[in-house]
Amino acid sequence: MLLEKLNWRYATKKMDTAKAVPQDKVDRIIEAVRLAPTSSGLQPFEVIVVTNPEVREKIKAIAWNQAQITDGSHLLVFAAWDTYTADRINSMFDFVNQERNFTSEGWENYRKMLLNTYPQRDAQVNFEHAARQAYIGLGLALTAAAFEGVDSTPMEGFEPDKLDEILGLRARGLRSVAILPLGYREVEKDWLAPLKKVRRPRDQFVTEVA
Amino acid sequence: MLLEKLNWRYATKKMDTAKAVPQDKVDRIIEAVRLAPTSSGLQPFEVIVVTNPEVREKIKAIAWNQAQITDGSHLLVFAAWDTYTADRINSMFDFVNQERNFTSEGWENYRKMLLNTYPQRDAQVNFEHAARQAYIGLGLALTAAAFEGVDSTPMEGFEPDKLDEILGLRARGLRSVAILPLGYREVEKDWLAPLKKVRRPRDQFVTEVA
Repeated sequence: MLLEKLNWRYATKKMDTAKAVPQDKVDRIIEAVRLAPTSSGLQPFEVIVVTNPEVREKIKAIAWNQAQITDGSHLLVFAAWDTYTADRINSMFDFVNQERNFTSEGWENYRKMLLNTYPQRDAQVNFEHAARQAYIGLGLALTAAAFEGVDSTPMEGFEPDKLDEILGLRARGLRSVAILPLGYREVEKDWLAPLKKVRRPRDQFVTEVA
Repeated sequence: MLLEKLNWRYATKKMDTAKAVPQDKVDRIIEAVRLAPTSSGLQPFEVIVVTNPEVREKIKAIAWNQAQITDGSHLLVFAAWDTYTADRINSMFDFVNQERNFTSEGWENYRKMLLNTYPQRDAQVNFEHAARQAYIGLGLALTAAAFEGVDSTPMEGFEPDKLDEILGLRARGLRSVAILPLGYREVEKDWLAPLKKVRRPRDQFVTEVA
């Protein structure tokens, strides 16, 4: 079932400008991202859903003019925390305690350990760590899209600083790391559609230590 | 369907030592990782499947003694390329050409662009980029596990240098970034099992630019 979906999906190069992804499908894709596990449950990233055509035109211009950004109907922007702060960590731990109506010494010691480690680290180290978590979310987004029969194209080919500026991300302590246009493949106009999906064979990808 | 699976899974704290994950389930989980999309299709990571009990004991010792590492039946280690080299890039592009029995000027120009960019960059920058791709695979692995009714616990809490040494990864140009024990939850012994899954509400996670 999942493997079928992963084989169905591909990095769509040509999307149909006439077909928009319905809101309920977008909602379920976003919900999958929200449910993605992250390190210590901090969810150190946010998702910006861009539908505005002018904003997407601006983004396309700083993203090698990749057509899917405007040919699709929605653009998901994955933006990681620029660093870990005590506020961000406390806010998540407090929220978890409130939601569970439960706390424990072990959990509070874990909070203290993070507070004594993360905020003191170099911001770039923290950002790279947060970016990895955002990629778990990216993986779930494209998987969820496939389950919805929606095409998506994970992209890193854009100028992050300029995208941050267009969306005002830096002021919010965020840095863009990946974008994902959503739409529907236009098979007859997509050079990649007929080509075989290629992955390294298992024996060059997996080692067993038995 | 996918959302149901994502709600079912959780970072299992206590696994049942008496139950092993069948090989066909492990195979499908690995296949999902192999099918994960990665930047330029380079698949810049490998998966090491550790079942050997002594090796898992050694790994547990450098991973805060987290019991799932030995209580589960399989341990997946995600190891990213330590850098991008011309050989690694060419090898993937050549393999794609061979598998598709097709090449094109655009594709070859893309290869050249990567060859002129990636190998010259700082190894740490390349490694961080490769690590992000590995996290897409990590996300697919834990999703695939959930579809198989298999529990998994994504972990970063280990000493990567020591894990690299135990598995001889550096000599192969790899660096461990995350580990994922696979097994079956022992609900009555798992403090986390009864607790609510907590995620930030959508309005604190998603922004719309409409």
